[in-house]
Amino acid sequence: MRILILGGDGYLGWPTAMHLSIIGHSVAVLDNFAKRRWELELNVEPLVPIQTLHDRVTAWEDVTGKKIQLFVGDLRNYGIVEKTLQSFQPEAIVHYGEQPSAPYSMIDHNRAVFTQVNNVTSTLNLIWAMRRVAPACHLVKLGTMGEYGTPNIDIEEGFIEIEHKGRRDVLPFPCQPGSFYHLSKVHDSHNIRFAVKIWKLAATDLHQGVVYGIETDETQLDERLATSFHYDEVFGTALNRFCVQAIAGIPLTVYGKGGQNRGFLNIRDTLRCVELAILNPAKPGEYRVFNQFTETFSVKELAEVVVAQANKLGIHATIEHAENPRVEMEEHHYNPAHSRLLELGLEPRLLSEVLIDSMLRRIEQYSHRIKTSIIQPHVLWDRRTIEMEELKYMWAGA
Amino acid sequence: MRILILGGDGYLGWPTAMHLSIIGHSVAVLDNFAKRRWELELNVEPLVPIQTLHDRVTAWEDVTGKKIQLFVGDLRNYGIVEKTLQSFQPEAIVHYGEQPSAPYSMIDHNRAVFTQVNNVTSTLNLIWAMRRVAPACHLVKLGTMGEYGTPNIDIEEGFIEIEHKGRRDVLPFPCQPGSFYHLSKVHDSHNIRFAVKIWKLAATDLHQGVVYGIETDETQLDERLATSFHYDEVFGTALNRFCVQAIAGIPLTVYGKGGQNRGFLNIRDTLRCVELAILNPAKPGEYRVFNQFTETFSVKELAEVVVAQANKLGIHATIEHAENPRVEMEEHHYNPAHSRLLELGLEPRLLSEVLIDSMLRRIEQYSHRIKTSIIQPHVLWDRRTIEMEELKYMWAGA
Repeated sequence: MRILILGGDGYLGWPTAMHLSIIGHSVAVLDNFAKRRWELELNVEPLVPIQTLHDRVTAWEDVTGKKIQLFVGDLRNYGIVEKTLQSFQPEAIVHYGEQPSAPYSMIDHNRAVFTQVNNVTSTLNLIWAMRRVAPACHLVKLGTMGEYGTPNIDIEEGFIEIEHKGRRDVLPFPCQPGSFYHLSKVHDSHNIRFAVKIWKLAATDLHQGVVYGIETDETQLDERLATSFHYDEVFGTALNRFCVQAIAGIPLTVYGKGGQNRGFLNIRDTLRCVELAILNPAKPGEYRVFNQFTETFSVKELAEVVVAQANKLGIHATIEHAENPRVEMEEHHYNPAHSRLLELGLEPRLLSEVLIDSMLRRIEQYSHRIKTSIIQPHVLWDRRTIEMEELKYMWAGA
Repeated sequence: MRILILGGDGYLGWPTAMHLSIIGHSVAVLDNFAKRRWELELNVEPLVPIQTLHDRVTAWEDVTGKKIQLFVGDLRNYGIVEKTLQSFQPEAIVHYGEQPSAPYSMIDHNRAVFTQVNNVTSTLNLIWAMRRVAPACHLVKLGTMGEYGTPNIDIEEGFIEIEHKGRRDVLPFPCQPGSFYHLSKVHDSHNIRFAVKIWKLAATDLHQGVVYGIETDETQLDERLATSFHYDEVFGTALNRFCVQAIAGIPLTVYGKGGQNRGFLNIRDTLRCVELAILNPAKPGEYRVFNQFTETFSVKELAEVVVAQANKLGIHATIEHAENPRVEMEEHHYNPAHSRLLELGLEPRLLSEVLIDSMLRRIEQYSHRIKTSIIQPHVLWDRRTIEMEELKYMWAGA
C-alpha cells in the first residue's frame, strides 16, 4: 500500500515509516523540521544523536535496500499538501505532523496561538486537499487520550450513548482537554468528523496515550536509524523522563501527588496500532476513534516501577514530589475503554521489567549527553502573577 | 459600567453599543471593518445604507449627547488587543468580533481556514490579554446554538449530567457543529472554558439562536443610526431573507423539506440578553453558557408566518422548496433548554404579527435596493465534484 507519513522526522513518525517500509509498503515521509527548531529555541536535544532525515532515508536504503520517498514541506502551505498528495497518490496518510507538546503550548501567548493555528491549519489543509485530490484515501490521524480529560465516568472510544429525559442518542464523547495543545487536538477531531460527514472521507482518529521507549526493531538495525528520544520537560514524556533521571542520579520528579492516571503504551505498540488501523481501514463516510494505549498507571506507580528496576540494576533512584506545574486533578477516576485495537489483533507489550532494563541500559550508553537542567518543570499552567517578559524562553517567530 | 464591544460595526455590535450607552454605561467599540470587505468580495450590501462607524459614533453624540469611544483595530493583532484593554479598562467585554457566517466559511478552502484561524486567534488573543491586563473583567462571548447541532436528546445550557455505567458527572454538552464557522465557535468555547479554569477568568458564553429584525429603539432615533441588515445567502438569516423575498415578489426559498428546527430571537431581545448577562456577571473561575433564543420554529413554519402576514398586507408571497445546499437533517428532534436568561428577567418579544408588519414596511421603504440575485443559495456544503477554480467567488487574501 502507498502510505504517506506526515511528521516523518519525529519520535514516532520515523519509526513508523521504517516499520511500514520493512513490512512491504511503499512509504513516503513529509516534514518541515519545525521540531528541530523548537529544540534549538529551548536548548534541548534528543538523548541519542540523530541524523538528518535525508541521511536516515539514505541509511535505511543502505541497510535494507528499501526506499522511503522524502518530501520537505510545511503542512500550513496548502499548495504543498495538495502537490504531495497528487505526486505520491497515497492510499493511507498517517498524520503525526503537528506541534506535539502540551508544555510547549503553555510557555506563552505566542506559542499557544502558534500551536493551535499550526495544528488546526495543517489538518484543515490536509482534509481539503484529500477532498480534492485523494477522496478515497484513508486518513489515520494521531490524536490523544488527553482530548477527553478525566471525567468521573468511564471514557468510551470517541462516542457515548447518552440517555437523557427519556430519549437516547450516540454522541461525541464530551471533551475536557487540559492544555492549548490538547485543545488543538480536540479542534482537529471536530474538524475531521465534520469533513468526513459532508465529504464522505474515511478517517481513523487514534486517541493515543503516553508513549514510552527508545528503540524499535528497525532503529536497532543501525545506529544511524535512531529516533529522537526526548527527556526534557517540554518534549519528554513521563516514563522516558523518569528513566533518564534514574540514570542521571537525580530524583524522579512526580508532579504533585502523582495520582494522575493516564494510559500508556510502548513505542513498538504505536507502530503496530497504526499498522492495524491502516490494514483495517475506515469506510468512506466513517469517522472512528480508537483509544490507543495498553495499560493505565498513576504517575506515582510509574515512578515506582522505574525506581524498583533501577535499584535492581544497582542504580540508586529516588522519587521527589515536585509542585505540580499543571492545573489538573491529582486523584480521579480513570477507566477508559480500549478494546477496538485489541479486536483488530493488537497484542500489547506490557511494561515488563525486561523493557525498562533495556531502556535504562540504552540511556546509560548516552548518559554523558544528559543535560539535567532541562528536566525540571519551568512551564507553569497558571501564570497569572508572572509577566510575559519574565518568561524563560524567548519567542523566535512563527 | 465600562463596556467594550468587539465587532462594534456589525449587525448586532452597533445596536448593542447604542443600547448600553443609552442606559448609562460607558461604552467603547472596536472593529477592523473586515465584514465590509467581505461584502465587497461577494458583491453584497446591507439593505439600508449604513454610515461608517466613525460617522455613526458622531451621529450618536449629535442625537443623544452621549459619547461612544472608537477603537479601530484587528483582534488578530495581540498588541492591539492588549493596548485597547489597557487604555479603556473595561469591566465587561462583549465579543461579537468574529467572521459570523456559516456559508462564508463553506465557500472554499481559503475561507474555511481563514474563518477558523481568524476566530480562534482573535479569541485566544483576547483571553491572554485579559489574563494579563484585565483579569477581573467579565467576558460575554457570542457563541451560537449551532454549536450543539441537532442531537436526538434535549439540548441543555452548555453542560449535561451524564450517568454512565453506574457513575455520574456533569460534562460539557457534546457538540456537532454543521459548518467550519460553527466549528470555530466550538473551538472558541473549548478555549474559553479552559482559560477560565486555569486563570480564574469570568466568562459567559451566549449560545445564540438566529436573530431577526431590522430596527431597535436606538436605530429608530435617526436614519444615520441604522444597522447593517443583510438578506443575501451568505450573511442574511432565515426570517430576514424571507421578508425581503416577500417584498421583492420572489418565492421564499426554504432549503429542502424545511423541517429544520432552530431557536430564534428578536434583535431587541439580543440587546436585552447581553445586558442581563453583563448586569449579572459570571464569578471569577466561572464559565457559564446561556442558550439565547426565545422560540423555536421550523424553517417551513417561519416561511409560512411571513407568507400569511405578507398576504394580509396585500403582498402576494409564495414558498419554494430549494435543494438544500447544506448537509443537515431536515427532520429531527429539537427541544433546547433556555431558562437561564428568563430567570434573569428576560421578557421575550415573541414573533408577533405586528413585528413582521413593521419589518415588511421598513423593507418596502428600501425595496429599490434589493438585489434578487444574491439571495439564492450558491454555496454548497458538499462540493466534492466541483473544482475549486470553478467557484463563483474569488479569494481576495486574508
